[in-house]
Amino acid sequence: MTDAVEPLRILMGPGPSNCHPSVLQAMARPLLGHLDPDFLAIMDETQDLLRDVMKTANRLTFPVSGTGSAGMETCLCNLVEPGDPVLVCINGVFGTRMADIVERLDGKLHTIEAEWGKPFEPEQVREAVARTAPRVVAIVHAETSTGVLQPLQEISRIVHEADSLLLVDAVTSLGGCPVETDRWAIDALYSGTQKCLSCPPGLAPISLSPRALQTLEGRATKVRSWYLDMDMVKNYWGSQRSYHHTAPISMIYALNQALKVIVEEGLERRFKRHRLNHTALVAGLEAMGLSMLVDEEYRLPMLNAVCIPHGVDDAKVRRALLTEDNIEIGGGLGPLAGRIWRIGLMGHSSTRENVMLLLNGLERILKAEGAEIPTGGTEAAEEVYEDAS
Amino acid sequence: MTDAVEPLRILMGPGPSNCHPSVLQAMARPLLGHLDPDFLAIMDETQDLLRDVMKTANRLTFPVSGTGSAGMETCLCNLVEPGDPVLVCINGVFGTRMADIVERLDGKLHTIEAEWGKPFEPEQVREAVARTAPRVVAIVHAETSTGVLQPLQEISRIVHEADSLLLVDAVTSLGGCPVETDRWAIDALYSGTQKCLSCPPGLAPISLSPRALQTLEGRATKVRSWYLDMDMVKNYWGSQRSYHHTAPISMIYALNQALKVIVEEGLERRFKRHRLNHTALVAGLEAMGLSMLVDEEYRLPMLNAVCIPHGVDDAKVRRALLTEDNIEIGGGLGPLAGRIWRIGLMGHSSTRENVMLLLNGLERILKAEGAEIPTGGTEAAEEVYEDAS
Repeated sequence: MTDAVEPLRILMGPGPSNCHPSVLQAMARPLLGHLDPDFLAIMDETQDLLRDVMKTANRLTFPVSGTGSAGMETCLCNLVEPGDPVLVCINGVFGTRMADIVERLDGKLHTIEAEWGKPFEPEQVREAVARTAPRVVAIVHAETSTGVLQPLQEISRIVHEADSLLLVDAVTSLGGCPVETDRWAIDALYSGTQKCLSCPPGLAPISLSPRALQTLEGRATKVRSWYLDMDMVKNYWGSQRSYHHTAPISMIYALNQALKVIVEEGLERRFKRHRLNHTALVAGLEAMGLSMLVDEEYRLPMLNAVCIPHGVDDAKVRRALLTEDNIEIGGGLGPLAGRIWRIGLMGHSSTRENVMLLLNGLERILKAEGAEIPTGGTEAAEEVYEDAS
Repeated sequence: MTDAVEPLRILMGPGPSNCHPSVLQAMARPLLGHLDPDFLAIMDETQDLLRDVMKTANRLTFPVSGTGSAGMETCLCNLVEPGDPVLVCINGVFGTRMADIVERLDGKLHTIEAEWGKPFEPEQVREAVARTAPRVVAIVHAETSTGVLQPLQEISRIVHEADSLLLVDAVTSLGGCPVETDRWAIDALYSGTQKCLSCPPGLAPISLSPRALQTLEGRATKVRSWYLDMDMVKNYWGSQRSYHHTAPISMIYALNQALKVIVEEGLERRFKRHRLNHTALVAGLEAMGLSMLVDEEYRLPMLNAVCIPHGVDDAKVRRALLTEDNIEIGGGLGPLAGRIWRIGLMGHSSTRENVMLLLNGLERILKAEGAEIPTGGTEAAEEVYEDAS
């Protein structure tokens, strides 16, 4: 392995993003036992930091011992019992995945769909909630497969007026744009560590509201997953410290450090940085004649879905970026495979330097591919930075 | 956090164990994307190394993205469908946990029990298999809660004569004593990284036999867990490389390196080292007048269950070992809480130095507690080492 990982990849795909060196260093710290008082103190601190970043006072706020998808499964399998009506909003891969999980839980699945690349309108949700009276409404805040930002405030009101629970996928948004867990009255929020938190993949921070906890405690049936049963896991993260499973210690060290880096930068400054680099990237891409999949007001700052110009070989361009420029970007998924590139500007990867390297590399490679690309991409991006300074 | 983790704990509990410095260093390596060709090569190599250590040719051999308990749930939830008869052998915490999982899967649960601290006799399994005709027989090879080593060869014959599948928990045994996946015809094996593999906790290496794969592929119902559905995950670890969830990249770096350390030492030498340190520890403890919970022939070399002398305060002794000697040992679980200590000699923690430090510290602390302890513990251990050299 030693040689294989030496090139320092510039990670500009849909995650993982690059980590701050102090986060990688935290991964290498010698282990403590999972019930060691010193480790318990780190757990407590990590929970407090997570509450700060998630903007919540929820007691049940901690990382699940698996990747972001484990966070999705955790939220659903703890809140849904067989036969419970669940409304899943699908406009990309991750909504589709939530629906798949609800079916495996024998929930009564209802879905609404929006075009991939568009957000849901509140009215569509209102109609479906009225029709299906769901126990849980599940929706993706930042669709990593399409680059769409879903506004949540109006939808949250609709969900709560119907006395349903709001379950939100914030895998890609947390740490890169506002996620107001309490202000938006989100009942179950999950995220992943390898996107805008800029920590290695392996943990899924979640937060459950008091109403979600009540639902969990009022279940008639056991949670179907032992590993993800929050009714037990919460007693390890809470004051009882009951052994459930051995915590992934090093990953928690790393998350703790990654959250400290975020708090030190400040959320507002961090969001502004993400926004600026996104704006510069888009200006550069558009100057090169490329177009974005998503309408301007719904674009995610950390995940940019760029339409692949007609006649250009998707895989060839990505391979050239990787081998010649050491830059990873992502391809499209499902119906968008071959149609878009997904360029991530997440956490520690969201820098002016990376924007310029990407624009330079992409222009060179597209020209080598014979595409007719106007020059001026990097200049347009530079202008954005100059205007902002 | 910085100060809190500085003391280098000597980890002699039931896991995690201490890691080789090169393994910690691997954790800190910069990330690659989970579909990066360089990372895929590391995955392939890790699978080959796992097959060497697990003594198997099974194609489906890879780490599940969760801790050891996720490995347990993975094996059960992929092989058990609602209504399937499953025989779980319970003689400790981990058999109990398997039974709990089978119930959550709506399997038809049958259990047999042996006293905590004793292994199962093949005859008891034979009778139960004949009576219940199980699809799966689940048994723990190394019960971390009691220190019992379960012989498996005879039981494997019984299980296969009945055309059932053999599912084995090797969380604590793998890498510390022989685990012959193919020779013992184990159909589903799972382990954890933080015991005798001496890697941080966070992954569960598993191996599924061709018969287990056939069972998985012949399921009438979907696996209840999306995250742990091996029918999908295997296509990421196999040649298709289909995206399922983002792999815990750094943990896979670390496991890769930990397995290399093992292969470099050689399995036979490694098992001999574990056996020798165990023998020396027991000699020392017995010279101090302490007794072991488990009969000699069924003692695990890596997990030593020691009876707490009458009148000695369990928690006080463990706290003193931690604060005065920087040594972590474990307490008992369930019916053995307050009755035993669990002293781990796992992987990188299994050293002569650690045995001597533990015996020294324990003798001093027990005496300070007013226990009447004969001297000569360390001398007895030294004799074992001298005889072996």
